[in-house]
Formats: sequence, C-alpha cells, structure tokens
Amino acid sequence: MIKSKIPIQVRYAETDQMGVVYHANYLVWFELGRTAFFDDLGYSYCDFEESGLVAPVVDIQASFKRPVKYGDDVTVTTWVESYDGLRITYGYEIATAGNGVCVTGRSLHVCVRKDTFRPVSMRKIHPVLHQAYLDAAQH
Amino acid sequence: MIKSKIPIQVRYAETDQMGVVYHANYLVWFELGRTAFFDDLGYSYCDFEESGLVAPVVDIQASFKRPVKYGDDVTVTTWVESYDGLRITYGYEIATAGNGVCVTGRSLHVCVRKDTFRPVSMRKIHPVLHQAYLDAAQH
Amino acid sequence: MIKSKIPIQVRYAETDQMGVVYHANYLVWFELGRTAFFDDLGYSYCDFEESGLVAPVVDIQASFKRPVKYGDDVTVTTWVESYDGLRITYGYEIATAGNGVCVTGRSLHVCVRKDTFRPVSMRKIHPVLHQAYLDAAQH
Amino acid sequence: MIKSKIPIQVRYAETDQMGVVYHANYLVWFELGRTAFFDDLGYSYCDFEESGLVAPVVDIQASFKRPVKYGDDVTVTTWVESYDGLRITYGYEIATAGNGVCVTGRSLHVCVRKDTFRPVSMRKIHPVLHQAYLDAAQH
Repeated sequence: MIKSKIPIQVRYAETDQMGVVYHANYLVWFELGRTAFFDDLGYSYCDFEESGLVAPVVDIQASFKRPVKYGDDVTVTTWVESYDGLRITYGYEIATAGNGVCVTGRSLHVCVRKDTFRPVSMRKIHPVLHQAYLDAAQH
Repeated sequence: MIKSKIPIQVRYAETDQMGVVYHANYLVWFELGRTAFFDDLGYSYCDFEESGLVAPVVDIQASFKRPVKYGDDVTVTTWVESYDGLRITYGYEIATAGNGVCVTGRSLHVCVRKDTFRPVSMRKIHPVLHQAYLDAAQH
Repeated sequence: MIKSKIPIQVRYAETDQMGVVYHANYLVWFELGRTAFFDDLGYSYCDFEESGLVAPVVDIQASFKRPVKYGDDVTVTTWVESYDGLRITYGYEIATAGNGVCVTGRSLHVCVRKDTFRPVSMRKIHPVLHQAYLDAAQH
Repeated sequence: MIKSKIPIQVRYAETDQMGVVYHANYLVWFELGRTAFFDDLGYSYCDFEESGLVAPVVDIQASFKRPVKYGDDVTVTTWVESYDGLRITYGYEIATAGNGVCVTGRSLHVCVRKDTFRPVSMRKIHPVLHQAYLDAAQH
C-alpha cells in the first residue's frame, strides 16, 4: 500500500484567534497530500487538468482530534482507501512531531471533463493511471 | 424546529481555476450559518468567546452536489440536528436560486474553555443557552 | 464624487493568532468594495467577465493603522481616485464603529481580454461604462 | 546583502477563476519569505512571538507584472530594504522559472508587544537581533 508523506509549514495566515490552525485549512493540506500522492505515482495534477480532466471533491469528512499550532512540525500522510474505476476515496492523516495524529479525514472524487463536468471512466481514457490506482488501492 | 437562513455573496477570492467555489470555502460559509443561528437564538458568538468559551469543530462532513459559481444567488440554511448538553451537531444546506441544493453538511462541536481546551457542561455554566439548544434540537 | 459603502461581517476564518484580522484579508474586502462600486454604477462584475473582460489588479497598496477585530462593526468605503480611459485607480477606507479608520488603500487596474490578457480601451469597447467612470472620477 | 530564497508550490486553493493566483495570496507568500529570512538570520518567528513580541505589517505594496499559474516553479526572494532600530522594510520578488519576475513588493513592520500593541525598541530589548538587522540592511 502506497502512502505519500509530505511536510507542511504552518502559515501564519492559517491560524485563527483561537491560536490554532483554522479547521477549513486542513482541507487545503489534504489537497497538498493528494497532489503529492499523484506525483508519487508519476503524474502531475497540472498535466492532468491540461488534458481536459478535473477530479473535484464530491464528499469530504474530517475529524479534529488535537489542534495544530504555528511552529509545529507537521506531516500529512495520504493513501487511497478505495477505487472502482470511477470513484476514488483518499484517506489522510495529519500528525505533528510532538502530539501524534491531530486530524484524520477522507475525500471522495470523481473524474469529470473540465468543460462539461460529465463523469469519465478512468479505465477507458487513462488505462495506465487506472491500473496505478488499482494497485495503490490494494491493502 | 428553528432554521436560520442567510444570503452569501460569492467572493472572487473564493473561486478557483475550475471556475467554481473552492470546496474548503463552503466550510467557512457553514461557520457563517452557525454564527447566524447563534444570533437568531439571541446570542453573539463574540460575547460567548469573551466569556472564556469556544466551540471548536470536532468533526465535519460535506457533500458537494453541484458547484456554486461567482454571481450565484446563494442561501445557507443552518439548524441543530442534535444536542445532548455537551455535544452540538449542526446541519447545513447551501442552495442557489437557479440550481437548488448544491452542498449539504454537518459539523459536531463541543464547548471548551478557551485557555485549557477542557470540555464544559453547557447545562451547568450556561443553563439558558442550554435550554435554547434543547428547544432548537426539537424536531 | 460617488462613494460606495458596504458593511462587512468579520469572519472567524479571517482572524489570525494575533487576535486580529490577518492583513491580506483586507485586500479581499477592498475587492468587495470594488464590486459594490461597480454595482452602484449599475453594472455587475459577473456580467462584465462574461462579456470576455477582466480587470486584474496591477498594483496595490495598503496602510494598516489599527487592527480590526472579530465582532467589530466594519464599513468599507470605495471610490475612484483616477481614471484615464485605460487605467482605473480605486481608493478604499476600512473603518469600524468604535475606532474610526483602520485601513486605507488604493489599487490600480487595467481592463484586459480574459483569453489574451491584452489591454483594451474602455472608451472604445464600453463607451457608456467609460463615461460612468469619467463621471465617478470627478472630484 | 543577505537575500533569502524559498520555493513555493502553488496551491489549487490559491487560484481563482481567472486561472491565475488570486492577488491577495502573494502577500501570504511575502510572509513565508519574511519567515525564511528570519530563519536565515538564525531566529524563529514562533520563538519571537513566544517572547511576547509581534511584528505586524504597517504598510504593504505590491506590483503584479505577470500572473503566476498553478504548476509554475516559483521562487520568493526576500531582503531588508531598510532598518532604523524601530521600523523594518522588507523587499520581495516573486519569480517563475519560465517568466522571470512576476510580482515585486515591500512591507513595513514595527515590533510591538503582543499584549499592548505598543512599539518596542529592538536595540534595547533584542540587541543581537538588532545588530543582525543592521547588518542585513547594509547594501
């Protein structure tokens, strides 16, 4: 099972007056995790979009166990929880050096054409990437 | 059952290069919905924080059915799905004039002391607000 | 001289751990001010973009005199400082009920075609809007 | 003259429907540049704040010459333009591998106490950091 790990530098702009990272910003970090995962498979999300496809978030869930603070040493771990040729579910874990797991989450995506937002079959239009996701989803 | 409705003006900054609102921004709109709900109960979240309490998000979920676009006429509807004296679950619906429901979601909150992040019993420290939430949670 | 005034509700997400609004967010409020100004002239920025034009920021400046806080009663005032048929400079003032002027700023814009980012002459392609800006720039 | 250089990965969330980075986000990158500069001097902005000081932005200016796009290879260069023991002016340049300089800017900061927002003399309370800034400002 492939897991991508990336470090995150907490930005001052991402904190709020509670003195911790504002919760919606963790979703942006999830996206950085996805991008890294895609990179690790040997693809670029930028190229993917330029080929006329996008993979919007259809459903997202996050559990906030401990707050992350400015100055924390943060790692986002990303993997594929499931993939059926049409729908991809990513899993995420955000941890800090001192406090362990702070946030967990998952997001569901469908590949669609950029211009029509119509779903496409990854198996048909991108068989190599399709196989890479099938392999990645193997636990 | 109390439902708060507020209009949202889509900000240019909230769109992304897909030409629609970036998904994490809907969570900020949920928060505006919660704030309005709190206002409608006769309270101010600002005063609530100044009394030494905060109600951080513990868990959040959102389903993105249709994208919201810049220029859309948006309404966020917020209600209390459940409340047990400690934990509050809010429900949300984001709709546009033309497309109906675009995003739905829920978030779970616990009241904690601002300085220690220790949970507090709303029933004990804020009986009037406690009763207001019990009433609001009645379906 | 036309001045547009709009109220702003400070969002929790806009605060940072200094306990005040994060400075870059004031630029987003400037944009809400510009949009309101455009509306007050009888135009919609959304329609403007759909006609194939955009008016990106070329230069921006802001002075932060006093911090704005969550819960503050905020007003953004926007006007046209100068306009020469090609370049528009907006002026802004952000004030709170209690503290008066907190932020001032100005931004320079040029109208360009959305697809090529090539400058266009407002006088030629949009003579009515051109005249409205000439009038608005009269002090 | 010390110049700090850091790479920036453009985030999808930072783009807008014009298909480029939304202008206010460059100010967040400026801040990452400042943080890196501070690090390069051997200090941590996080420790600085924990010592009871903050260095809020008093004035900011930015010129947008060319848009930065998602997927661009971006570098932020940061230096000290001037320093007088009380006021620090940073200079910034944002460049991409393909297009050269895209954004330039500067920001003015004053060190203040976190609790009172009263200005402090860096020379008195932090003589070593004061000297480091004097040296950094030497052109």
